Amino acid sequence: MVKLFISGFGTVGQGFVEVLGRRVDFFENRYGEQPIVVGIMDSKTVVTDPKGIDVGAAVAKKLETGSVGTEKYTDSVKALDSVDYDILIEVSPTNIKTGGVGLVNITHALECGKDVITVNKGPLALKFQELITLARKNGCKFRFEGTVGGAMPIINLCHENLKGEKISSIRGIFNGTCNYILSKMDKGQPFEQALKEAQQLGYAETDPTNDVEGYDAATKVVILANSVFGRNVTFDDVKITGIRGITTDAIDQAAAHNMVIRLIGEISDTRLEVAPRLIPVGHPLSIAGTLNIAQIDADLAGPITINGHGAGKIETASAILSDLIAIMDMRY
Amino acid sequence: MVKLFISGFGTVGQGFVEVLGRRVDFFENRYGEQPIVVGIMDSKTVVTDPKGIDVGAAVAKKLETGSVGTEKYTDSVKALDSVDYDILIEVSPTNIKTGGVGLVNITHALECGKDVITVNKGPLALKFQELITLARKNGCKFRFEGTVGGAMPIINLCHENLKGEKISSIRGIFNGTCNYILSKMDKGQPFEQALKEAQQLGYAETDPTNDVEGYDAATKVVILANSVFGRNVTFDDVKITGIRGITTDAIDQAAAHNMVIRLIGEISDTRLEVAPRLIPVGHPLSIAGTLNIAQIDADLAGPITINGHGAGKIETASAILSDLIAIMDMRY
Repeated sequence: MVKLFISGFGTVGQGFVEVLGRRVDFFENRYGEQPIVVGIMDSKTVVTDPKGIDVGAAVAKKLETGSVGTEKYTDSVKALDSVDYDILIEVSPTNIKTGGVGLVNITHALECGKDVITVNKGPLALKFQELITLARKNGCKFRFEGTVGGAMPIINLCHENLKGEKISSIRGIFNGTCNYILSKMDKGQPFEQALKEAQQLGYAETDPTNDVEGYDAATKVVILANSVFGRNVTFDDVKITGIRGITTDAIDQAAAHNMVIRLIGEISDTRLEVAPRLIPVGHPLSIAGTLNIAQIDADLAGPITINGHGAGKIETASAILSDLIAIMDMRY
Repeated sequence: MVKLFISGFGTVGQGFVEVLGRRVDFFENRYGEQPIVVGIMDSKTVVTDPKGIDVGAAVAKKLETGSVGTEKYTDSVKALDSVDYDILIEVSPTNIKTGGVGLVNITHALECGKDVITVNKGPLALKFQELITLARKNGCKFRFEGTVGGAMPIINLCHENLKGEKISSIRGIFNGTCNYILSKMDKGQPFEQALKEAQQLGYAETDPTNDVEGYDAATKVVILANSVFGRNVTFDDVKITGIRGITTDAIDQAAAHNMVIRLIGEISDTRLEVAPRLIPVGHPLSIAGTLNIAQIDADLAGPITINGHGAGKIETASAILSDLIAIMDMRY
């Protein structure tokens, strides 16, 4: 039986337990039993049960009281150590400056020889090589499909389906908020109006800096550079230009040449960049709306492009599920 | 050591041995040795060597003399049986009416307990269930990524990365020739002129029936329906409309509503169809040019779209390579 500890119980953590509930038949058919959740921790409280937590009740308690547990903790590492688990599901809020509690939790779990699945970008954008080295040293599985492009299976696609290819570059749209804004600007809206609309729809936060300045896209560029290209880079190595400076005039000029402007993240042997680019209409990267997309240049297959929802409660949880199945397949 | 028999030595067969040559380091690093080719057969001749054929010399002989071997065969099954091999690489020309020699070869190899990799659509569009049942009964690996979308990894994506998803539909562009023609029509060319240009560029054959009538796309729809959806259908179950009837007037009307016309293959629980459809500009399926594309509707991940080169010597061979690696990973 596989025992899970979930650290972080916001939208994605709750989405993940919902997904577990929707895949009871799948787990039964594939493994003859269910994975159980033996620990859940939010920012202040923790609940554990070595026999398995009633996750429906945990979600209800979280929604009612704002806390998943009744027991407050001061040290997340001690909270993790308070129950025996096999896989840490790290879905606490991203901190791209320090890595936050997510970095602490992932590091500790790997040090204890646990497998880790995360969608938390901060720790990977800052300490990828340290974490992957620690995982290898301790024989742990460490998977993070959901950190780039949410439900879009880009990392596992490169590692599994394309493992015989030499990948020379990946270019993509890694921030759905910016793409929504640029798609609205295609239709004549100025930047500030499109941003406001994105905020009203919940796509952009009140402080949109992380998105519109390209910082969020840059974290994904770092993760792909390290995981797919075997580089050893961090956030500071990415050359970043956001979309604030894009004028309606620039959009019009692009349109006159049958082009659109898109915020493209690019990883290659010589380039590590997030910047607005001109893309011909009809090109895969000219996609409109909130989708994420990545174009992989492979030496034999040629360009392969994949897109999907870059965010969302169940969509992001689906990436965790795919990583969980991959790990469980190796255990059963 | 893995021993390969290649049946069919046209563009794709030759592309595959070129790919083997380009992955010597890869095989060395991953398995400590190379797969060897112990048999190659074209439409009339066969060459075998249990110690491994010099494939460079085989390609040279084929290009010089038109035949890969000096020994003529009358029965492809006997030719297959003339040497011990582990995996059949079936890349003979597609016959979507009878399955042709490809069907004979695949059936025989599976009956003999051999693993099979093919890019030959005919046998799978006609006899999928029989072949997959035979493979299971005899414990053979049977892989066919390259039959749909060439280098675009759609089948393995659904079977591996998305194995935890319930897929409700796949809609896609499965014929690059039609998409090239429709993309040219977007720019004002009438059908006949666009077809002529596609023929001059080698995208369309002298008799373009298979492509423009939608038959080729329909074979891919059948293969996806059987392999991804577990259906039991054949070519005759697909409702097919081609692109011959599309007028410049229809294209103009679509454009006036910011739409394009694309030949879409669709598989769902209730639908098995190839037909021209209106697609909004900016939608992933509005893609221009010769690419293939598929949009997968998954219940958790939402829509995931993938595209890549649907044809080409090395591109198609890259799909065989990915299947070969998957089988070799299980053997080593």
